[in-house]
Amino acid sequence: MNQHPDFILNKINGPQDLKKLNLDQMKKLAQEIRTLILEKDAVEGGHLGPDLGIVETTIAYHYVFDAPKDKIVWDVSHQTYPHKMLTGRALAWLDPDHYEDVTPYTNPDESPYDYYAVGHTSTSVALATGMAKARDLIDGHENIMALIGDGSMTGGLAFEGLNNAAIEKHNLVVVVNDNEWSIDENVGGMVTALKKLRDSNGQSPENPFKVMGFDYRYVAEGNDIEKMIAAFQDVKDVDHPILLHIHTLKGKGYKPAIDDEEAHHWVLPFDLKTDKTTVPATSGPTAKSVVIDQVIKHIKNGEKIITINAAIPAVFGLDEIKNEYPDHYTDVGIAEQESVAFAAGAVKEGAVPILFENSTFLQRAFDQLSHDVAANDLPVVMMVANGGISNGSKTHLGIFDQVMISNLPNWIYLAPTTLNEEKAMLDWAIKQRKHPVAIKMPIKPVPEGEEVEADFDQIKYQIKKGKKVAILALGDFYGLGQEVADEIGATLVNPVSANILDKKALDQLAADHELVVTLEDNSLDGGFGQKVASYSGSKVKVLNYGQRREYTDQTPLEKIYRDNHLTKEQITSDIKKVLAK
Amino acid sequence: MNQHPDFILNKINGPQDLKKLNLDQMKKLAQEIRTLILEKDAVEGGHLGPDLGIVETTIAYHYVFDAPKDKIVWDVSHQTYPHKMLTGRALAWLDPDHYEDVTPYTNPDESPYDYYAVGHTSTSVALATGMAKARDLIDGHENIMALIGDGSMTGGLAFEGLNNAAIEKHNLVVVVNDNEWSIDENVGGMVTALKKLRDSNGQSPENPFKVMGFDYRYVAEGNDIEKMIAAFQDVKDVDHPILLHIHTLKGKGYKPAIDDEEAHHWVLPFDLKTDKTTVPATSGPTAKSVVIDQVIKHIKNGEKIITINAAIPAVFGLDEIKNEYPDHYTDVGIAEQESVAFAAGAVKEGAVPILFENSTFLQRAFDQLSHDVAANDLPVVMMVANGGISNGSKTHLGIFDQVMISNLPNWIYLAPTTLNEEKAMLDWAIKQRKHPVAIKMPIKPVPEGEEVEADFDQIKYQIKKGKKVAILALGDFYGLGQEVADEIGATLVNPVSANILDKKALDQLAADHELVVTLEDNSLDGGFGQKVASYSGSKVKVLNYGQRREYTDQTPLEKIYRDNHLTKEQITSDIKKVLAK
Repeated sequence: MNQHPDFILNKINGPQDLKKLNLDQMKKLAQEIRTLILEKDAVEGGHLGPDLGIVETTIAYHYVFDAPKDKIVWDVSHQTYPHKMLTGRALAWLDPDHYEDVTPYTNPDESPYDYYAVGHTSTSVALATGMAKARDLIDGHENIMALIGDGSMTGGLAFEGLNNAAIEKHNLVVVVNDNEWSIDENVGGMVTALKKLRDSNGQSPENPFKVMGFDYRYVAEGNDIEKMIAAFQDVKDVDHPILLHIHTLKGKGYKPAIDDEEAHHWVLPFDLKTDKTTVPATSGPTAKSVVIDQVIKHIKNGEKIITINAAIPAVFGLDEIKNEYPDHYTDVGIAEQESVAFAAGAVKEGAVPILFENSTFLQRAFDQLSHDVAANDLPVVMMVANGGISNGSKTHLGIFDQVMISNLPNWIYLAPTTLNEEKAMLDWAIKQRKHPVAIKMPIKPVPEGEEVEADFDQIKYQIKKGKKVAILALGDFYGLGQEVADEIGATLVNPVSANILDKKALDQLAADHELVVTLEDNSLDGGFGQKVASYSGSKVKVLNYGQRREYTDQTPLEKIYRDNHLTKEQITSDIKKVLAK
Repeated sequence: MNQHPDFILNKINGPQDLKKLNLDQMKKLAQEIRTLILEKDAVEGGHLGPDLGIVETTIAYHYVFDAPKDKIVWDVSHQTYPHKMLTGRALAWLDPDHYEDVTPYTNPDESPYDYYAVGHTSTSVALATGMAKARDLIDGHENIMALIGDGSMTGGLAFEGLNNAAIEKHNLVVVVNDNEWSIDENVGGMVTALKKLRDSNGQSPENPFKVMGFDYRYVAEGNDIEKMIAAFQDVKDVDHPILLHIHTLKGKGYKPAIDDEEAHHWVLPFDLKTDKTTVPATSGPTAKSVVIDQVIKHIKNGEKIITINAAIPAVFGLDEIKNEYPDHYTDVGIAEQESVAFAAGAVKEGAVPILFENSTFLQRAFDQLSHDVAANDLPVVMMVANGGISNGSKTHLGIFDQVMISNLPNWIYLAPTTLNEEKAMLDWAIKQRKHPVAIKMPIKPVPEGEEVEADFDQIKYQIKKGKKVAILALGDFYGLGQEVADEIGATLVNPVSANILDKKALDQLAADHELVVTLEDNSLDGGFGQKVASYSGSKVKVLNYGQRREYTDQTPLEKIYRDNHLTKEQITSDIKKVLAK
């Protein structure tokens, strides 16, 4: 049921309705939007700080411009709740029954006001340069705008975009939404540059945008609707590239989000009165805590470890290392390419770099994983989080990193089945100084398991003998493999690595069994199972299980499993059919 | 035999010998190095302009610093012939019998003065940031330097590196070697910024490096040994990040290379007197000419095509489009991420973007191929050059792009077996406005072939019936497949696509044959064959052929083929063995 039938927002079916409001009404609308962001996030979790900070800018944008003809590309699009509310989707905030009607990012399937599915940073300016060139070619005249946060400016693609945007011959506006924050503290030389501009009210001659050729404007009060309207009116229909630098307050309107910006960039469901999360804390060791504890042990032990991440320390619980062992910690900003090249540099000087990467964002660093690390065979250690089949947005799926990395020469890709195995793999990866090693942190809960020897110089399959069928269950799908094996009395195998095959074991399995089945929490195409099929395919029948090559988008996990035959019942039934042939 | 026993260079076994020379001797040494670069390039081909321009800087570097303890990272490392000559490898230029002793890029296997195998641009600063941090951690005090050209500065990774280098707490020097050129004309806002600095002798307050926090120095005459020695002495052992901007002349000392810098960036063997290439021109249509001719036809036809490349128009023969149809042409600079995101932007505005990418450099854009193009299922057209097994450097192998792209959802990856098929695929890719399409330009010569209908909405295998064995020969390995099929009377199949299987045909082939063999000019792991093995593996025996997952480095093609069982004789023999089982 609509919780706020009295809100002005109920009358806003699109920008055309917004344009009828006066300034006071728009200010009230801003308050309503903030209330709704907080109410829904408290129930569902979601991005908070970025959305609270951009409310006035969004209202002013839709007041001044004529979307969807005029186009704005929202960088990352994690700040688009206000945009969605103003473009016909307010019910998804007003009415809890409709909370699920919209996805968290811009979504062309959802609205003509959204142009791209976006969830990675730093792409907006580059996309806008292509849009502007195409508009010019087809003799269009609409306004093209990219809006990018200062945090996203550390990503190299943002710079590539700016470098090209600066020479666009017609209309193109880049809005830099400067809230002095990335996901964590913002990092690097650009921080200095933006500060000089803010401190001089945009007047400093040391202007990184003007030097590239941009016309430049500065708005100190980006949370003032009136000033933002004036600023947008000023840049509407211009005939050349302009950079509009606006200063906003991340988390505006919710004190806890201003006081602790990192913790409120994205939130779990929480209590609006106390700001405390309503999600019960997990107890005992986790895939995350095991790694951090172990890394700290090695640091205390005097090992020359450098932990490296790209603006997401909280994903891994790196704060303790950041605070207690700052010499052993680096946050390169949102700059995955730099993170991996940095690790390649560090290893050459004798340090032991440990990269902490999020599966989907790591895609940005493919060439560094290949050209810088793999071709040089450098013993970089890399922990990959959120790699696996998930109910996430299609821009955030974790099923591609294993394919990306494990098909490169020299990389050893390990997938632990228990927390103790994860620990042993990390210990070994740190100790061996031969090859790059990626370790997939289980995305599904795995048992603590028995102590495991930290020796993976040779990949040796761990085999529990059964009959007829051999189930090779990789990483956190080992539990599923166990269920199937128990059901049909099959042999159960922990294959340890996603890309190094134990060929001796495979030959023996082929000789002793009628069918080899592979299970992996990953994309099928280019994955572990296809390597087994290729190796063993001329010797024994092989069935591969994983997620097929397609995008899911906020699809429930159970549905993905079912659609891909990833339940015990389906696998058992498939196996019986093959055996019956 | 040593062609120049009288050269001073004969006495330079390493930087320690260089330090004994006086200025006049060093000037003579510079002349000698230029002579040798030209002599060897005339015979063998290689990078020319970048090396001629950096001679004095290299001499000054090794005169001032104490390599290999002090470390310099050469960006791309295509300018390291002088460096190699001064670090004990001069014979590889003095004596034609030793021309093959060194590889064209820095190579740690070759010399302790080389730290990385490098062949892609824009990595040096990022690598240096990691080296500096590790040096600080292990309490080292050596000088760390990155040397990067202005052309490489358009790559986003360079910016990510600078952003982090600017906040390094101890010694780190970035040399920007500004010769006003990329491979082609340099592109974008940074060109403007660097020009302002050059025009003001480094004094302009609009300084993109100072705004980030760098200490900044400028040397107008970067080809003056004395001035470069002074500049390096000035930055040696500094305790903070410095950006040293030097102005040099690409191609210095060889007039044709100054007059036409693009054509002399990298050269084929040529006549030193006439500057004309000594490699006979090929006649008739090629994989390259067919594409350009066809694209021009479509442009003339009024189609809203935008051809896009990242600083390598000559690789594709794009000059005609650049000159005759500039509205249909974009060079984004060395910025592959931008090129792909630009295409994603252009397609949204109704244009037909055609990307022209080099297989190995395209790796830089993996996330854009995935997040921006694939997740949005945008009908971008992409021609990929140099994809396939080659005798290239390990940093330039072409066996990874197919794996990278073809395992992503929505992408259709086509591999033509003839020039007419390539043409038809391009026509279809332009016409269909549904999905992203990559087309692998044959790296091996393929016949012109018969006219092919431009319809690939469904992938339909083209089958020439034989017996017992079915050979699926992808793309330019079709010729090899034909040889094998002829030899043993096998069925020969053109599978058309690297990632869309004709399952109906595969089922029929499995039913009619004892063995299915796949051949691809590509890496085996994650490739086409493994998909077939996975699909057909439970129905029929499968053998996959391609290059195994390992780096080759300037390895002769014949040896790679032999090592991977890619000759007619080896394949035939393998097949017979499997059939005999």
